[in-house]
Formats: sequence, C-alpha cells, structure tokens
Amino acid sequence: MKMLDTDKKENLRPDVLSEHCQSRFVMNHVTNRWGGLVLLALSEETLRFSALRRKIGGVSERMLSQTLKTLEEDGFVLRKSYDVVPPHVEYSLTPLGEGAAKHFGALARWLEDNLEEIMKARGE
Amino acid sequence: MKMLDTDKKENLRPDVLSEHCQSRFVMNHVTNRWGGLVLLALSEETLRFSALRRKIGGVSERMLSQTLKTLEEDGFVLRKSYDVVPPHVEYSLTPLGEGAAKHFGALARWLEDNLEEIMKARGE
Repeated sequence: MKMLDTDKKENLRPDVLSEHCQSRFVMNHVTNRWGGLVLLALSEETLRFSALRRKIGGVSERMLSQTLKTLEEDGFVLRKSYDVVPPHVEYSLTPLGEGAAKHFGALARWLEDNLEEIMKARGE
Repeated sequence: MKMLDTDKKENLRPDVLSEHCQSRFVMNHVTNRWGGLVLLALSEETLRFSALRRKIGGVSERMLSQTLKTLEEDGFVLRKSYDVVPPHVEYSLTPLGEGAAKHFGALARWLEDNLEEIMKARGE
C-alpha cells in the first residue's frame, strides 16, 4: 500500500497536497464531476440505477455507471443485485460511503448557502 | 442571477443536484483537480505564486494560474500585487474562501484519516 509521496517519507500521515499520495487519488473519485453528487443522492436512500439517474440532473448513463463502479471499488457504494427477471439492481452507501457523503454534503450545503455572495463576487 | 434549475422553479433553494443550478457550477471550481488543493494550501497562509506552487505537489504553472484566476473570480482568493521590481504578487483567502477551505479541508482530513480502510476495500 503506497500511501505517501516518496519524496516526503518523513511525513507519516496521508496528505492530499502530496503529488503521489493515494489520498489525492481517492479525493479525485469523491470530487470529480459526478462522484460527490452520487454520494449525495444515495445519502440515506437506496436507489435503483434509473431513479438515481433521475435524481442527478444531467448525468449520462455511461458516466453514472463508471462513477458507481469507481465508488464501489473504493468501498463507498454497495451494489445489490436481485436475481429476478427483469434484473433488479439497487445501490446504497456503505458506512464508509455515509462518512464521505456527510463531508461532501457539508461542503455542498455551504456552497448552496453562500451562492448569493459568490455570484455577487462574480458580478452575476 | 440564475441560480435554479428552470425545471424545478418550485424549489427556491440552490441545489447542486439540479443540472443548471449555479451552485453546481461553483462546486466544480472548488472540487476540480486543483481548486480545493489551492484553497487548502492558502488556508491561514498568504503565499507568493512560486511558494504556492511548491506546496501543491504536481501542479503546473499554467494550471495553477488558471485555478487562481477562477477562484479569484468566485471571490475566494485575493490577489495582491505590489508595484516593485521584480513584481511581487501575493495570494490569500478572503473570508468567503476561508469558509470554502474549511469545508473542503474537513473532507480532505476525513479521506486522509480513512485512507487505510478505503485502500483495504480497493484490495491495495
């Protein structure tokens, strides 16, 4: 497990500011265009693919699939497949995913709450 | 100021899950590859361009310039230029930027603190 920037071996704590730290790699999964929004949408709610896609405005099927796959690999999302016809697949957050969603959600709420001031700064 | 998804006019609160909400647009500035890391690096510290670049592993001059410009437009970053030779330019966070940095920082700390569990899920 390579967690640290090899240039900074003395620093034993993961650090997103370090180029090769794995925490930055994972950070990109949570903060890329759709990752955080998927975490938010699944917060305290289990959803099927189509419902999840409806909840996240503008996401394509392909991007949603890719994002779910990455978040599943990171241990944030649980994919539960029921062996019925037609196939029924449900997505939910693991406890780890709930933790990430909580922090991403706090950032999102803050941005929503301060949007007026930000748009004023932008002169819009 | 267009803050809301026109399909969801009944919802008067900004919502990052809405495709056309300006909060998602600003969210992308804070959570794109370098935006959040710049906010973190400037947290409680004023830095010149070169020092800021050294602090953020792997960022190119061009990407750092672009990111700073966007964050300045959003009202998160203050650029102070001293009229001396050679030119001396300092970057710091506005109170609004400190707010964004606080929430992005909480997410980053959480990811760093839970990295071991995440990497275990990834089988790495």
